[in-house]
Amino acid sequence: MADIARLAGVSKATVSRALNRSTLVSEDTRTRILALASSLNYTINIGAQNLRLKQNRTVGVVVPYDAGVRQELSDPFFLSLLGSLADALNARGFDLLLSRVDAEQLDAAATPFDTGRVAGIILIGQWRRHEQLNALAARQVPMVVWGAQAPQQRYVSVGGDNASGGMLATGHLLAAGRRRIAFIGDTTQAEVAQRYRGYCQALAAQGLAPDPQLCVPASFLAQDGAHAVHQLARRGVVYDGLFACSDLLAMTAINTLRALGREVPRDVTVVGYDDIALASYFHPPLCTIRQPVRAAGEALVASLMALIEGRPAESLQLPAELVLR
Amino acid sequence: MADIARLAGVSKATVSRALNRSTLVSEDTRTRILALASSLNYTINIGAQNLRLKQNRTVGVVVPYDAGVRQELSDPFFLSLLGSLADALNARGFDLLLSRVDAEQLDAAATPFDTGRVAGIILIGQWRRHEQLNALAARQVPMVVWGAQAPQQRYVSVGGDNASGGMLATGHLLAAGRRRIAFIGDTTQAEVAQRYRGYCQALAAQGLAPDPQLCVPASFLAQDGAHAVHQLARRGVVYDGLFACSDLLAMTAINTLRALGREVPRDVTVVGYDDIALASYFHPPLCTIRQPVRAAGEALVASLMALIEGRPAESLQLPAELVLR
Repeated sequence: MADIARLAGVSKATVSRALNRSTLVSEDTRTRILALASSLNYTINIGAQNLRLKQNRTVGVVVPYDAGVRQELSDPFFLSLLGSLADALNARGFDLLLSRVDAEQLDAAATPFDTGRVAGIILIGQWRRHEQLNALAARQVPMVVWGAQAPQQRYVSVGGDNASGGMLATGHLLAAGRRRIAFIGDTTQAEVAQRYRGYCQALAAQGLAPDPQLCVPASFLAQDGAHAVHQLARRGVVYDGLFACSDLLAMTAINTLRALGREVPRDVTVVGYDDIALASYFHPPLCTIRQPVRAAGEALVASLMALIEGRPAESLQLPAELVLR
Repeated sequence: MADIARLAGVSKATVSRALNRSTLVSEDTRTRILALASSLNYTINIGAQNLRLKQNRTVGVVVPYDAGVRQELSDPFFLSLLGSLADALNARGFDLLLSRVDAEQLDAAATPFDTGRVAGIILIGQWRRHEQLNALAARQVPMVVWGAQAPQQRYVSVGGDNASGGMLATGHLLAAGRRRIAFIGDTTQAEVAQRYRGYCQALAAQGLAPDPQLCVPASFLAQDGAHAVHQLARRGVVYDGLFACSDLLAMTAINTLRALGREVPRDVTVVGYDDIALASYFHPPLCTIRQPVRAAGEALVASLMALIEGRPAESLQLPAELVLR
């Protein structure tokens, strides 16, 4: 109100009277102030949240990038999640504002909201910046994060049940008689850490301990699946099963195994993660853990709509599913 | 200026003086008017186009949908083009506003520009609505379209060289000794029609005429590749080569051929189109025509920046490249 008063060159009391349609303010001044208030997206007679929802039909989707890796937006899982978000928002008459921020500065993710361009934010991934996300939630930015559920979490997240996913994948390999199961993934990321926990639990259920030699760090870049298989070869460790934390990693791992003369699944059984569209067209068709991309887009948007409208939203874990092929 | 004068409760002359920093206007009034002008995104002392570029750092990307097919945003080529556009815009400090419109009403694509939300529009695909696109260009909407170059085109397009792509694909099959080459694609779409023209030209260069029995209509939905192979089987036509107008179509076609007991490439040589990320991981690795997705994102954004800044932009055909695998 102070801003409007300053811009209109009147007192705050006059602005207040005009917004309340008091007869003490001339018709001309009132029209002028209402137009000004409207141009500044100010609240007139209805709740701020309602107005924000009514006037701003855009949601910000922020995909952080790792400045070190300078990763392009090419990961098929992220892209299909983006497509699913676009469909879910479009079905509600919302547009999607896509922006990218440096993963080291996740608080910048709120800029499109702070500048009034979007009604709320969907952030893809936590990027080890749990505290920054808590800070955004503390200052009431309507935001839903795709990722793992963490202890002491103040923000709303929607993600897959990664621990179950890890257990299902590893359990499948154990059921196939595999005992030496390699794990490929970046366990410093919350989602991958939970998959690794599931892997360890499934091994423990069979009385097996995880062998650190079988765990190979790998980013989500496709070629890291190939690198990991070469790394295992250099270590000279024996393995008959392989759990890769994405389908892309699994695919490049399988192609590399083939190049090294090891047949899949005869010599090594492989399970991927995500169930991207092309997993079923791969040869041999890829056995994987399905992340429900359509349901994820719907759930992220539904939770954000609740926050924007001032309703509560709970963090959510979508069930993981083993896809046998 | 009339709007500012009305809102500030001063004359247009006063607004003009304030914007020109005349000493005839009090410091207080000037500050008030400048703040108001700025909040309304008005021009202050620099050209409108410059200001538009400086203040509005958002580009609209419109992906139409076919209301009949109700196609989800899941095509890997479109998604990777979207990722490439996001990267190219991000590198210039621009955000991307993604919206979808009914392909029957392509003129609605300009709404984000008309309402001042974006500085320009990138439209993915022509969707048989050449005239509507011409009309948008005629009324000076800064817009670049991904698609085929057409006669009597008034809008700027960036696309692949589809005729060459069709020739390269078919020429490769002919060079492999194939003579009965099936074509899978929707020739009512401009880009596919050009690929089909290239296919006919390559056949003609070998003294062959296209056999209508070998041409099977197919949308870009993945399963249409499988349907097309079944259709060819029902027709009972003999073929030893297959040119599919997308990699997805090629992949489902290959899997269906395999299911029908025909080996690839021994019995049928297959060429796809696009070179999506997973074409190289497919087994057998997919021979295809590369659409340069990174270069496409760069070119679309560079052309749009030219239009936004009032510079001319020419329509562009990016070279097609045969990828042998």
